[in-house]
Amino acid sequence: MDAAIHPPDPGVGDGVAGSDGTLGERLAAHYAQRIGARQLQPGARLPSVRDCARAHGVSPSTVVAAYDRLQAQGLIEARRQRGFYVRASATPATPRQREPDFALPAPVDTTALIRAMFRTRASLPGPGLGTLPETWLDPALLQRALRRAIANADDALRYGEPAGESTLRDALARRLSNELGIAADSSQIVTSVGATHALDIVARALLKPGDAVLVDDPGWAVEHARLTGMGMRLLPVPRGPAGPDLEVMRQLIAAHRPRLYVTVSVLHNPTGAMLSLAAAHQVLQLAEAHDLILVEDDTYAWLAPAHAPRLAALDGLRRTIYVTGFSKILAPNWRVGALAAPPALVDAIVDTKLLSSLTTPAVLERAVAWCLDQGLLRRHAERVTARLAAARTRVVRLAHDAGCRFAAEPQGLFGWVETGLDTEPLAVRMAGEGWLVAPGRLFHVPPRASTLMRVNFASAQDARFWRAFERARDALRQAAFSGANRGLKVAPGL
Amino acid sequence: MDAAIHPPDPGVGDGVAGSDGTLGERLAAHYAQRIGARQLQPGARLPSVRDCARAHGVSPSTVVAAYDRLQAQGLIEARRQRGFYVRASATPATPRQREPDFALPAPVDTTALIRAMFRTRASLPGPGLGTLPETWLDPALLQRALRRAIANADDALRYGEPAGESTLRDALARRLSNELGIAADSSQIVTSVGATHALDIVARALLKPGDAVLVDDPGWAVEHARLTGMGMRLLPVPRGPAGPDLEVMRQLIAAHRPRLYVTVSVLHNPTGAMLSLAAAHQVLQLAEAHDLILVEDDTYAWLAPAHAPRLAALDGLRRTIYVTGFSKILAPNWRVGALAAPPALVDAIVDTKLLSSLTTPAVLERAVAWCLDQGLLRRHAERVTARLAAARTRVVRLAHDAGCRFAAEPQGLFGWVETGLDTEPLAVRMAGEGWLVAPGRLFHVPPRASTLMRVNFASAQDARFWRAFERARDALRQAAFSGANRGLKVAPGL
Repeated sequence: MDAAIHPPDPGVGDGVAGSDGTLGERLAAHYAQRIGARQLQPGARLPSVRDCARAHGVSPSTVVAAYDRLQAQGLIEARRQRGFYVRASATPATPRQREPDFALPAPVDTTALIRAMFRTRASLPGPGLGTLPETWLDPALLQRALRRAIANADDALRYGEPAGESTLRDALARRLSNELGIAADSSQIVTSVGATHALDIVARALLKPGDAVLVDDPGWAVEHARLTGMGMRLLPVPRGPAGPDLEVMRQLIAAHRPRLYVTVSVLHNPTGAMLSLAAAHQVLQLAEAHDLILVEDDTYAWLAPAHAPRLAALDGLRRTIYVTGFSKILAPNWRVGALAAPPALVDAIVDTKLLSSLTTPAVLERAVAWCLDQGLLRRHAERVTARLAAARTRVVRLAHDAGCRFAAEPQGLFGWVETGLDTEPLAVRMAGEGWLVAPGRLFHVPPRASTLMRVNFASAQDARFWRAFERARDALRQAAFSGANRGLKVAPGL
Repeated sequence: MDAAIHPPDPGVGDGVAGSDGTLGERLAAHYAQRIGARQLQPGARLPSVRDCARAHGVSPSTVVAAYDRLQAQGLIEARRQRGFYVRASATPATPRQREPDFALPAPVDTTALIRAMFRTRASLPGPGLGTLPETWLDPALLQRALRRAIANADDALRYGEPAGESTLRDALARRLSNELGIAADSSQIVTSVGATHALDIVARALLKPGDAVLVDDPGWAVEHARLTGMGMRLLPVPRGPAGPDLEVMRQLIAAHRPRLYVTVSVLHNPTGAMLSLAAAHQVLQLAEAHDLILVEDDTYAWLAPAHAPRLAALDGLRRTIYVTGFSKILAPNWRVGALAAPPALVDAIVDTKLLSSLTTPAVLERAVAWCLDQGLLRRHAERVTARLAAARTRVVRLAHDAGCRFAAEPQGLFGWVETGLDTEPLAVRMAGEGWLVAPGRLFHVPPRASTLMRVNFASAQDARFWRAFERARDALRQAAFSGANRGLKVAPGL
C-alpha cells in the first residue's frame, strides 16, 4: 500500500518539467498537463482507478490521491458510480486571461468579502472560502437522507415544535453526551437555520443594544459585523495558541462588565488554535466570578480531533451555550444548526427564535438526524478529516515554498499565514485574477492592516494559486519600492 | 346539483335532536353521532362519496360538504386515494373530560399565546390559530414538489445565492407582475425563512434601536413583540375598514418622524379588512411627503380576492417593500417567504440576511417555485378559498347564534368578533377546556383589555367551540355579577 514499494512509473512526470513531488502528485501533474494540452478533452472519461494503477504501475491509493488532487484543482469531476471525467471548464487558461468571477473593491470591507464568498462560483477553488470544496462532500448521502426525510413529511402541514424537530434534538443530545462529553438533554437543544442563526438568536435573547461583548481577536468577521450591527460594544481579547489572553480579559471585564464572551474554542477561525484544558478551566473560573455567559461556537466540530475539550463539557452547560452546525461537513445549503443551552435560558432563546423566524424546516432537520443516527455522518467526517490532513501537508509545503510561514500551528480547515506584506491590496489584486483571498484585516476588531491571510487547506492545494500569490506579492513590493523611491525624490523638495 | 332538488334523506337528522341545518350539516351530524356512539369505530372506513350520496339520496356535493365538516371537526381523516376514515382520536369526549392540551397563564401575554399557538397539537381545532387546518392542505402536492426539488439537489453543496434560489425569485417575479400588478424584477426579490423572517430582515436592515415605526392597531402580535424587542418605538395607527386613520397618521408622523410603516393592506390581521384604492393612494402620498418606507405584509395573499389592490402595485416598488410567504397556503413548516424591494434597498437587505442566517435552503425554495410554475399552487388556492367561503358562512351563523357580532366585515381567514366581555379571562378559562382563543388584548398596541377576539374561520366551525364559548361567557358573567354584588355589600361598610 506504500507508494514506495512500487517502481516509479515511466509515464508519470515525463510531461512535467522538474516535478519532484510524491508519486501521486506526479501522476496528477501528468494528467493536468494532458488536460491542459487538450489531449484529454472536456467530458472525456479518465481510466478507472484500477486501470490507471495498472497502466502506471502504481498502487490504487496513489491514483486516488492523484484524482483527488485533480478534483481539488477543478480539472476533473467524479460522477457517482460512473468514474472521473474532465470538467467542461477544465481547460486551464492562464489566470490573466480569465474573466474574473468577482471583484473586490478596496478597501476590502467585511460586507464586500462576505458577499464575494457567497456570490463567487469560481471555476478555480477559493482559498479564502470558509467551506469544504463541493467535491469533498457526499451528494449521494444527502440524497438518501432527503428521500427518507420526505417520505414522512406531513409535519410540513403545521408550524412544528418551536424548539425544533425532535429527532434532531434527540440525536444531537446523544452525540453531545456520548461523543463530546457535554451532558445535554434534548430539552436543552434548540435548532436553527445554521450556526450563524443560532449565534444570532443567542445574542438577541441575551443582549440589549449598548451591551459589551468579549470576542476573539482575531475572530470571525460575520460574528463581529452582526454584533456591531446590533449596537453592541465589542471587546477584543487576543487569542493565543492555547486560549485567550486572560490578563486582558480580566481588565476588560473589570472595565466594561460584559455579559457574554463569544468564542471558538476548537479549531479557532482563523488561526486553527485549540483551547487548552488549563485555559478552559481558567476561562470558566473568570466567567463564574463575573457572571459571564460563554457562547462556544463549535462550527468546525466535525473536523476536530477526537477528545478536543469543549468549554461546555467542563462547565456542564451551566453558563455555556454551545452552538454547532452541519454546513462545514454535510451540506452548506441545508442551513441546519443548533444550540444547547443551560435549562434556565432555553425559554428565552425559543421565544426569540419564534419572533425571528417562527419555526425551522423539520424535513431538513430530520435528514440531518438520520445521517447522525445511522453513523453515516461520522464515517463521512472521518474520510473528510483524513483527506484534510493530506491537503494540509501539501498546502504547508506550498506556502513555505512561496516564502510564507504559519503564524499558528496548521490544524483543521484554516491556516493563518504570515505573508510579509499587507494582505488587503494583495486580496484586491488577486481578486482581479479570479482568486478569492481572505485578508487578515477582516478578522481583527476593529479591522486593521494585517500581513496575515486565512487559507482554506482544502481549497488552497492548487499550485497555480501560490504562483499567483507570488506574482501579486512581487508586483506589489515592486510598486511599493518604486513608490518609496519616488517618495524620497519628492520629499526633499517640499 | 342543488341539494333542494333531492328528497330529504330519512336517515339524516333522525339521530340528532332539533337539527335544522343544511342537508350537508345534517348528514355530518348524523355521522358525528354514530362516531360518538362508537357505532363507527376509530379506523372504520366511511362510505365513498358516491355510495353515501346514493344511500342517503343526496347529491355528491352534499356528501363532500358533510365530510369536509367532519374533517374540520377532527372526527374523520382523508387518506389519499383510499377514502375517509374515522380518526383514532375521534371519540368525542365532552370538553370537560379531556386533558387540556395546553394552559394559558393569566394575564395572557404575547409570548404565552404565541407559544400556545405553536406548541398545541390539540385534537380539537384551534379557533385562535393563524393557519389553515392541516386537513385543508395538500400533502400529495408537497410530496411531489419535494421529490422533484431533491432530484437536483447538488446546490446543497454550496451556500447558494445570498438573495435566494433563482427559480423561486423568477417565479415570484412573474406572479407579482402578472397576477398582482406589482412590476418586480427577480433582482428585487430576496427569499427568507418565512414571511416573519423577511419582516425581521427588513426591520434590521432599515432601523436602529430607538427609531419610531408606524404599525396597524389592531395588528399582529408577533410583529409588535419583535419590533419592541429590537428597541423600536411603536406608533399605533387605528385601522378602519378601508384603511388607516390618516389624520392620526399625519399627527404621529409630524411628532415622531417614523422611518417605516408596517401594515397588512389585504386581509388585515386580525380584522380581515381590505385597504381601499383611495386610502392606498393617500397613504402613498403621505409616505412620499415624509420620506416614509412602507412595508406591506401580504402574508394572506393567496386567500385574497382577485384584484385586491396592493400598495406595492400602486407605488411600483419605489418606496414599498412587499413581503409574502407560503405558510398560510402551502406548508407552514417549509418556512419559505420572500420580499420584493426597491432596487436601492436590495443590497442592504441581502447583507442583513447574510449576517442573520447566511443563505436559505434552496431545496425548499425550488419546491415552492415548482408549485408556482406548474399552476398547482393557484389551483390549490382556488379550492381553499372556495372552502373558506363556506366555512365563513357557517362560522358567521354560529357566532351570531352565540350572541356575538362581527366588528369588521367577515373576509379571508380571520373574523374579528365582538363578544361583549373581556376576552382575556375568557381565553384563560377556555384554554383550561382545550380551546385556543386569541383574545383582542394581543392585537393592541400597547396591549389593553378588549372585548374582541380573533377567530379562524377554517377552525371555528365546530359547534362545540361555540357552546364552550357560551358556557365560559355565562360563567364569567355570573362570577362578575356575584363579585359586583359582594362588592356592593362590602363597600358601604368601608
